[in-house]
Amino acid sequence: MAAGTHADVLVVGGGIIGLAVAWRAARLGLRDIAVVDPDPGGGAARVAAGMLAPVTELQYGEEPLLRLGMASNERYAAFAAELTEASGGQDTGYRRCGTLAVALDSDDREELRELHAFHRRLGLDSRWLTGREARKLEPMLAPGVRGGLHVTEDHQVDGRRLAKALVLACERAGVRLHRAEATELLVEDGRAVGVRLGDARTLTADRTVLAAGPRSHLLPGLPEGVLPAIRPVKGQILRLRIPPAYRPFLSRNVRAVVRGQHLYLVPRENGELVIGATSEEQGYDTTVTAGGVYELLRDAHEVVPGITELPLVETSAGLRPGSPDNAPLLGPTALPGLVAATGHYRNGVLLTPVTADLVAEYLATGSTPALAEPFSPTRFTTKVPA
Amino acid sequence: MAAGTHADVLVVGGGIIGLAVAWRAARLGLRDIAVVDPDPGGGAARVAAGMLAPVTELQYGEEPLLRLGMASNERYAAFAAELTEASGGQDTGYRRCGTLAVALDSDDREELRELHAFHRRLGLDSRWLTGREARKLEPMLAPGVRGGLHVTEDHQVDGRRLAKALVLACERAGVRLHRAEATELLVEDGRAVGVRLGDARTLTADRTVLAAGPRSHLLPGLPEGVLPAIRPVKGQILRLRIPPAYRPFLSRNVRAVVRGQHLYLVPRENGELVIGATSEEQGYDTTVTAGGVYELLRDAHEVVPGITELPLVETSAGLRPGSPDNAPLLGPTALPGLVAATGHYRNGVLLTPVTADLVAEYLATGSTPALAEPFSPTRFTTKVPA
Repeated sequence: MAAGTHADVLVVGGGIIGLAVAWRAARLGLRDIAVVDPDPGGGAARVAAGMLAPVTELQYGEEPLLRLGMASNERYAAFAAELTEASGGQDTGYRRCGTLAVALDSDDREELRELHAFHRRLGLDSRWLTGREARKLEPMLAPGVRGGLHVTEDHQVDGRRLAKALVLACERAGVRLHRAEATELLVEDGRAVGVRLGDARTLTADRTVLAAGPRSHLLPGLPEGVLPAIRPVKGQILRLRIPPAYRPFLSRNVRAVVRGQHLYLVPRENGELVIGATSEEQGYDTTVTAGGVYELLRDAHEVVPGITELPLVETSAGLRPGSPDNAPLLGPTALPGLVAATGHYRNGVLLTPVTADLVAEYLATGSTPALAEPFSPTRFTTKVPA
Repeated sequence: MAAGTHADVLVVGGGIIGLAVAWRAARLGLRDIAVVDPDPGGGAARVAAGMLAPVTELQYGEEPLLRLGMASNERYAAFAAELTEASGGQDTGYRRCGTLAVALDSDDREELRELHAFHRRLGLDSRWLTGREARKLEPMLAPGVRGGLHVTEDHQVDGRRLAKALVLACERAGVRLHRAEATELLVEDGRAVGVRLGDARTLTADRTVLAAGPRSHLLPGLPEGVLPAIRPVKGQILRLRIPPAYRPFLSRNVRAVVRGQHLYLVPRENGELVIGATSEEQGYDTTVTAGGVYELLRDAHEVVPGITELPLVETSAGLRPGSPDNAPLLGPTALPGLVAATGHYRNGVLLTPVTADLVAEYLATGSTPALAEPFSPTRFTTKVPA
């Protein structure tokens, strides 16, 4: 694939968000699309557990985000199927398994009860279980589990396989992947016109999509005030293996809040059990620490004591891109020619299909879909570029 | 190096014990020595923390083993220096740092007090410290540390570098390393006469030294009753990294008994901090488990809470070879021509120099040195080979 010097749409950042935007834009008939990333398919999705949890992750006051998450969740099955086909058969590990959120003490139980009531007011499908009922559903749960909320519509996908499928689908759709670093945003006459690459080449573009996760706002050349700082929120995560003799071990995602920390166990059909995740705000550091691994094992052991028997096969850490309000930035920025698809915080894997559809639609039509409006990057604009 | 078909001395097993025996035998002037191992320098030493702790590991009723351990400890500095020279400069990480054994509660303190009294009766150098004195020596110790025993003569070595140095020293001394599996012990007229290799070649030998750790007694062809079963005792271990800003972090080995389990933290000069070890008897399994890692982190966190900040860089597991009385088997067996150097249990790294010297001396002179007598393999002989 020759490296062109001009693109109609240039995506900076080849994580799953950037790749999915490029692929969907190509599906909508846009031509001459390029993605710039030293390692396409890398990024946080390679670390993420891939839990698709718009319902169990719901927080008060986040109803637009809930709607966005639900919309993405609803299109996930079709998105995954289409992607598998478009990638030439790469499975994404999408699994409709449901999620069980459990309470370990009476405070947790009270919070889950309130979440349940909130679900009911919103008409969402969730069912209250006693501790005994929860253990009947998942026999590996600790005897101390005091109750749970069974959410049938929160599922899972495998971030690594998803990323791989997106790279393949982009290649097959004719998207050009420039395996290079974007070192500068080029701005001419108050308009984004492309990027400079690490090897000093320039790539000009009619529209530039910034999808560089927690490094989005750090791209040199970006005028001040166009994007807020995107916080890197470190998540450490473990991968265990469930030997055949122990399967299924868990049949659905299990989550809990332990000592104020969100814990989840995501059992894949291939026998992998992902346990996540810490949440640490300490800069661009992806070191796996003794303390991070310790807390995850301790907390997971409280919820599912039987994990101690399982092989621990991998520890890793990634960075979630957190915007000031923890909601994503989707669509045109205050800088003409510059579009954002970043700031997805804890929900990047979940929001990939809807982000790709909304941003691709904007690129194809020039108008912002209604679902994306609450997430306009301009809500953070502090200074209109001259 | 051509693979000969006969050796004067043939060592089965190229872990540190087998390699050290071969190297020392060559130093004593023996010629035509071969070591058979698919991966010389592998084995438990690659996993071990390398704590040299004859004094702090002392148990009542093990005085011959204490003497053996002390003898090995005394010759370690010279052994390491000689090995570095003989290997062409490979450092072994030998470090005279001392060890601090600490107590977390009053029961521990009582046990350490008794160990201290025992040390004094034996004339060993150990000094009792209050919790405050212990923390003054090692400021990273938990506030809960109730007292400690400072042993100046328990040191450390790096098992991986030691193994590498032994491979190099053997090669330079003309020891032939056969990178193959020994599949059968050859016995003729009631005498061990060599081994068959995986590729069906045979290697005959005047003397065969069995140094195959927990697989020693499993060598096909070994007559019944000559060797007892050697138990594989699994140890899981962690490697952390001490970033320069945190150094020294710990200045000497730190050990404790936490929930009945021996825990040690071995800080190397290169910034590695090794934390070990579990003790599990469940066959020939070297899987790293979630439970093993969890327990080590939990217990280490109790002794040195600051470990949580450190990067966790490696988890691994190895098998200690445990004889029925947990003491090694050194010297001639009841089968003429067959010599043992195995069963070192928790003390393989410590006992390497003395084992090598004693077994090499036996090979050179035909008589068993007095220090080795309590460790004669014949103490387990149940049936004299016909």
